[in-house]
Amino acid sequence: MAANIAEETLKVSYEQLTDLEKEFEDNEVEIIRHQVALNKPLYEKREKILSQLPGFWPLVLEQAPPDVDQYIQPSDSAVLLGSLKNLTVSHFEIENGGKGDPRSIAIRLEFHENEYFEDAVLEKKFWHRRAKSGWTGLVSEPVPIKWKKPSFDLTQGLLDLVVKVWEEDKKRGAGAAPITKPKDYTPAQKELKKKIETVGMGGVSFFGWFGFRGFPISEEESKTATEKDKENRRLRAEGKTVTDEDEEEDEDEDEDDDPYGLEIFPDGDELAIAISEDLWPSAIKYFTSGQEQGDMSDIDFEDDMDEDDEEEEEEEAKGGNEPPRQEA
Amino acid sequence: MAANIAEETLKVSYEQLTDLEKEFEDNEVEIIRHQVALNKPLYEKREKILSQLPGFWPLVLEQAPPDVDQYIQPSDSAVLLGSLKNLTVSHFEIENGGKGDPRSIAIRLEFHENEYFEDAVLEKKFWHRRAKSGWTGLVSEPVPIKWKKPSFDLTQGLLDLVVKVWEEDKKRGAGAAPITKPKDYTPAQKELKKKIETVGMGGVSFFGWFGFRGFPISEEESKTATEKDKENRRLRAEGKTVTDEDEEEDEDEDEDDDPYGLEIFPDGDELAIAISEDLWPSAIKYFTSGQEQGDMSDIDFEDDMDEDDEEEEEEEAKGGNEPPRQEA
Repeated sequence: MAANIAEETLKVSYEQLTDLEKEFEDNEVEIIRHQVALNKPLYEKREKILSQLPGFWPLVLEQAPPDVDQYIQPSDSAVLLGSLKNLTVSHFEIENGGKGDPRSIAIRLEFHENEYFEDAVLEKKFWHRRAKSGWTGLVSEPVPIKWKKPSFDLTQGLLDLVVKVWEEDKKRGAGAAPITKPKDYTPAQKELKKKIETVGMGGVSFFGWFGFRGFPISEEESKTATEKDKENRRLRAEGKTVTDEDEEEDEDEDEDDDPYGLEIFPDGDELAIAISEDLWPSAIKYFTSGQEQGDMSDIDFEDDMDEDDEEEEEEEAKGGNEPPRQEA
Repeated sequence: MAANIAEETLKVSYEQLTDLEKEFEDNEVEIIRHQVALNKPLYEKREKILSQLPGFWPLVLEQAPPDVDQYIQPSDSAVLLGSLKNLTVSHFEIENGGKGDPRSIAIRLEFHENEYFEDAVLEKKFWHRRAKSGWTGLVSEPVPIKWKKPSFDLTQGLLDLVVKVWEEDKKRGAGAAPITKPKDYTPAQKELKKKIETVGMGGVSFFGWFGFRGFPISEEESKTATEKDKENRRLRAEGKTVTDEDEEEDEDEDEDDDPYGLEIFPDGDELAIAISEDLWPSAIKYFTSGQEQGDMSDIDFEDDMDEDDEEEEEEEAKGGNEPPRQEA
């Protein structure tokens, strides 16, 4: 089977296929832009309704899908369920008519007064960037948390250290290359590395997510790489041969480099995507499903709430075609 | 936790939340409409490029994700890998400026001359419908296959029987209620039921999918239910109380009813969605991944094809930030 393909495929180049995929991706970005604009008034309406349901977001978190839930430790649950007041996702680069990337997202958590930290709001921003190597994805900056006592710090000091290293990086200037080789680490970096090994990656608190940085790709690098990529695609579409020195250059990258070595929450970008593309748009579905479980253990949402109906559009079993009960 | 919610939630009704979800769904439909229109020229371009890769679709099927692959039996593979020429998905209700539902889809398979069946094209249409009970989803009609010999019939006669029952249903007229109670079955229905039990649901051929019907919801019923649903939402938005007799009525539905009892491929709608929302848009990704596996076993796509790059946008490992090699 596959052997036949090999002989017959020489008419189509690998670049033709990847460039085509990039055209689809360009469209996808436009569709997200359109979707965000279209849904904005609805999300505002939803927020207004949900503000009348103070337990909404804690219950949604309790019902969170595995790609969110796996990052919430039992000690995090105590804080989140007891004090999470609101959660919002915004596409901040295109707010108010901005022309940025609609894939950049800000996730904002609002908290009631609580015994763990001072902050009433923790907002984490993720920028969608392109590296000159061709990599694309979300990068972020650490968000410090003002723990009321060191012993209340659920990240066990990891977040504070990440913030410290980040401050050092900023002092070296925006243009300076990040230190990614363990042998060149500053004392703060060494301390962070050691603490990561001690605390252990498996059991890091959800609040460690606020320390996620991702690849160190500046806005400038991303802009240049994006323009270059577009230009190369244009040239290839005209049948020209393109050699990208930057990408070639990167092939010689130092083996000692470990750009993710000081990441306290390596899946930070994936958690951000799970929140913005699943938890946030499907919040009512998770809430209703939590309510049902509550109903079953004698907790009522409204007297006439029906258990069969919340996922009617997406999930209703084919056999269980029961109609929802109506309000009297 | 949950107990607090119960006391505080009385200000928001269950209908408010479900109606809000329906507003989001309306937007989603508009977004699909936009997306289909935007991507149409690109899919045409893709089809033109792929026509130069005769082994493209068989290789994509070999690499299909589990939600497609689980339905392809070994005997189906022999037919599909040897003779599948092209696969296309269209949103037929909105083609050429149509104002229908963009969620209705047609999946068209083209075949090379083969020893199993006469058909050069098998196209299966799925209509997105709303039942008066409130259920929404995809329904379809059986597509007959002209097997060259009865012994080549991979569905073991199931598909022919489904077509026979469907022809009987059509003769009874469009307005006639379908026979869904086993005690009222016609001889053809009884024969079908027996054959389903004999052949066994687990091992049904992929080609049994062409027999999927889904709930018997006419275009008329769907149209009326959709209008009524919109009207009820409008009334509720004005603060009026709405009682939907149709939905109440359906609660008394006969327990003997088994609307899915004669379905030879009960997951037909889910397979259609997996093809149209995953296999079809991600076909190049699956193809390239198949090529890579081929490369590893000494089969070449192009000499300079690189193995690290095909899922660059979505899947590239954070550590493995290797650039693609360039064409010389």
